[in-house]
Amino acid sequence: MSVNLIRELASVLPPEGLVTDPDVLEAHRHDQAGWAAAGVPGVLVRPASTAEVQAVLRVAAALRVPVVARGAGSGLSGGANATDGCIVLSLTRMNRILEIDRRGLLAVVQPGVLNGALKAAAAEHGLWYAPDPASWEFSTIGGNVATNAGGLCCVKYGVTGDAVLGLEAVLADGSVVRTGGRTVKNVAGYDLTRLFVGSEGTLGVVTEATLRLRPRPPPATTLVASFPTLVGAGAAVTEIMASTRPSVLELMDRTTVRAVESFKPLGLDVESAALLLARSDAGGEQGVAECTRMVAACEAAGATFVAHSADEAEGELLLVARRLAFPALERQGATLLDDVGVPLSRIAELLAAVELIAERRGVLIGTFGHAGDGNMHPTLVFDRNDPDAVGRAKAAFDDILRVVLDMGGTITGEHGVGALKRPFLAAQLGPESLRLHHAIKSALDPLGLLNPGKML
Amino acid sequence: MSVNLIRELASVLPPEGLVTDPDVLEAHRHDQAGWAAAGVPGVLVRPASTAEVQAVLRVAAALRVPVVARGAGSGLSGGANATDGCIVLSLTRMNRILEIDRRGLLAVVQPGVLNGALKAAAAEHGLWYAPDPASWEFSTIGGNVATNAGGLCCVKYGVTGDAVLGLEAVLADGSVVRTGGRTVKNVAGYDLTRLFVGSEGTLGVVTEATLRLRPRPPPATTLVASFPTLVGAGAAVTEIMASTRPSVLELMDRTTVRAVESFKPLGLDVESAALLLARSDAGGEQGVAECTRMVAACEAAGATFVAHSADEAEGELLLVARRLAFPALERQGATLLDDVGVPLSRIAELLAAVELIAERRGVLIGTFGHAGDGNMHPTLVFDRNDPDAVGRAKAAFDDILRVVLDMGGTITGEHGVGALKRPFLAAQLGPESLRLHHAIKSALDPLGLLNPGKML
Repeated sequence: MSVNLIRELASVLPPEGLVTDPDVLEAHRHDQAGWAAAGVPGVLVRPASTAEVQAVLRVAAALRVPVVARGAGSGLSGGANATDGCIVLSLTRMNRILEIDRRGLLAVVQPGVLNGALKAAAAEHGLWYAPDPASWEFSTIGGNVATNAGGLCCVKYGVTGDAVLGLEAVLADGSVVRTGGRTVKNVAGYDLTRLFVGSEGTLGVVTEATLRLRPRPPPATTLVASFPTLVGAGAAVTEIMASTRPSVLELMDRTTVRAVESFKPLGLDVESAALLLARSDAGGEQGVAECTRMVAACEAAGATFVAHSADEAEGELLLVARRLAFPALERQGATLLDDVGVPLSRIAELLAAVELIAERRGVLIGTFGHAGDGNMHPTLVFDRNDPDAVGRAKAAFDDILRVVLDMGGTITGEHGVGALKRPFLAAQLGPESLRLHHAIKSALDPLGLLNPGKML
Repeated sequence: MSVNLIRELASVLPPEGLVTDPDVLEAHRHDQAGWAAAGVPGVLVRPASTAEVQAVLRVAAALRVPVVARGAGSGLSGGANATDGCIVLSLTRMNRILEIDRRGLLAVVQPGVLNGALKAAAAEHGLWYAPDPASWEFSTIGGNVATNAGGLCCVKYGVTGDAVLGLEAVLADGSVVRTGGRTVKNVAGYDLTRLFVGSEGTLGVVTEATLRLRPRPPPATTLVASFPTLVGAGAAVTEIMASTRPSVLELMDRTTVRAVESFKPLGLDVESAALLLARSDAGGEQGVAECTRMVAACEAAGATFVAHSADEAEGELLLVARRLAFPALERQGATLLDDVGVPLSRIAELLAAVELIAERRGVLIGTFGHAGDGNMHPTLVFDRNDPDAVGRAKAAFDDILRVVLDMGGTITGEHGVGALKRPFLAAQLGPESLRLHHAIKSALDPLGLLNPGKML
């Protein structure tokens, strides 16, 4: 810990904005990613305003100290992990909803606002903030923006980036830039908003976001179907996507179904290869009609069991299995929740490939996720105290990423690259794209102080 | 025209790819923007492959010659206007649809493919390419990507950028970069796809696009309503957007309604302040239910006349007035079709401000456009042979952009900055954002050869 750094930061921050207590620092070393390395931060700052963020970044630039921004620390890629001696910049004190504009269908929030708090505030105005990562109750908007977080609703309503109209960000030199604005459409200049969304704190620190709100969709109709083969489940996914507009389209493989059933017996068919869960919020008769078309698609694809309900409470019950997927797998050992994407037509292939990897490497892997977006979460379960098991899990993790790249997929659909997948980014992007990434990074952060060692 | 330049280009292109005929060059000097300056190109190249585009850009870089890429030349901001001595790079020969993947819900196309040709090809597979700029029958995908083109369907289905999964682009140094991919969700690295979308040929030349297709929506229910006041029409727009999901939500002001009625008598109420046209494609009963809610919103906002129809042919008739808006105004003189955006809540204010400007400057201005996105097209009509009228129109044009910026709006919602609005970009972005734009431009095009004098 540099005395000089602390002194400089103390000169620009009030006492409550500067923390050096080792126990608190320890609690701010990493996010929820299992395997990503984390260093020991030099100091934690908790700015309460954009001006304080600017002051911190100016000190960091002057003293050449890396800055790792973080929200709730619920990330799954080590994107918020500290590097040795860095300044951890927590945005959690900047947690005010500055504005909800019902007529303008937008909200202006600080980055530390919880996704769930924004949803609740929007609901008070009869509106809806769509993005719904699984972490919505405890993750922050700033973190959601940094990772371009996804969720269940993306299949119909898009990812976090689709809800961001504009941003305020502090750049590495302490200057403040505003991107986008309060309009839905805007082509004046480059799309800097989208450049910051998903940039994982490597280009600037987001200090304010203007977000799009929507009317609440009608109550949903819910469907569950089980399939004797992965190919059948994959065919149902592509047919549903080609002929309807599901508001949810999730899939769980046999391993996940069995984990759920053993965690909480719901009467799921543990012999089926996959369980599909779909929703339509088209509303009223049309919702039922869409659901009927989905049922037909499932039956045509060989589903052995299909159930559906237009009742919202019943629908929630049908979704319980999906919501228990990760908790159920977590109960069986240490987990690494992976996050990969493939072209929609290759979902079944992905699941089959993961099954094969699981078998070959002798690792339990339950796969579930957002089938309608081709975005799945193979979840590796292992005994963290068995070095051999950990080694096999790591090998399986690498295998999955390689298979996904071979299938023209992506190493991350919604969790981000962070520290966890940084070694694989070059293989996906190729040398020309990587060079372009570095050129942009250098243009915005020439000293390389913003979240070094993450993503790039 | 540089002999050296022609010789170098001739060494890398087949004869049919290189054009020096002055008449042909003259036809490639500018797009459809009225007032934007255009120079005289040195040469026109018509590459047939990515490799030929690379070769052209390498020659351009070696000889320091600017390159202006263009598609159909249907742009409305002078974004494709030539600069003196430049290479005009037409992508119209790269017009192949490389792939339609029904199961993957995507298409891969070359940039010279017409939007309408892609729509038709998608329809053969029972699918839909959503983006629908007014120019869809004759504009190219490359041009649509370069401007991030909008249209009527954006209010529900998003702009061109929302349909772009990945791009191949040739950079200023002749290298080829691929962005994005074939997955719907992808957060591996910066969103370079969105950086190129809307960059108006200033960062690279797009040579291939991977585009998202969707199932065709159900038949639409259509509504027309006329309002005695702009405030009433604006209130209807915000209420409809806050409570339903229209697939079209368009507005025409009194001047436009009168121009249409005098062009083709449809029995429109020429005394009304504004005409609203809305559609729901929620389908079946739900479409009717949404339409009923829209009717109620219009009546609550004081609409004096409301008509609606669930019949598609009748619905098309109701939309005729909107489709005639620009042709009707064009018939009354030379036109400048402007394109501005305001926050959704300020539509009525914008229309009132434009009316005031029209009155003060003595210029006929008909305003119509995509009310549900806050994206309107005030269209200035003037006698191009009367210097005083032209001067007043130019003054009114400037007034409108200033008013829009005062309202927290954007100087362009879907047409682009190009040459036409370049003088106003700094006022919208502010110095910090502009500096960031230049840093990115320099990182990608250090010699400043790609479409100089446009946007930045």
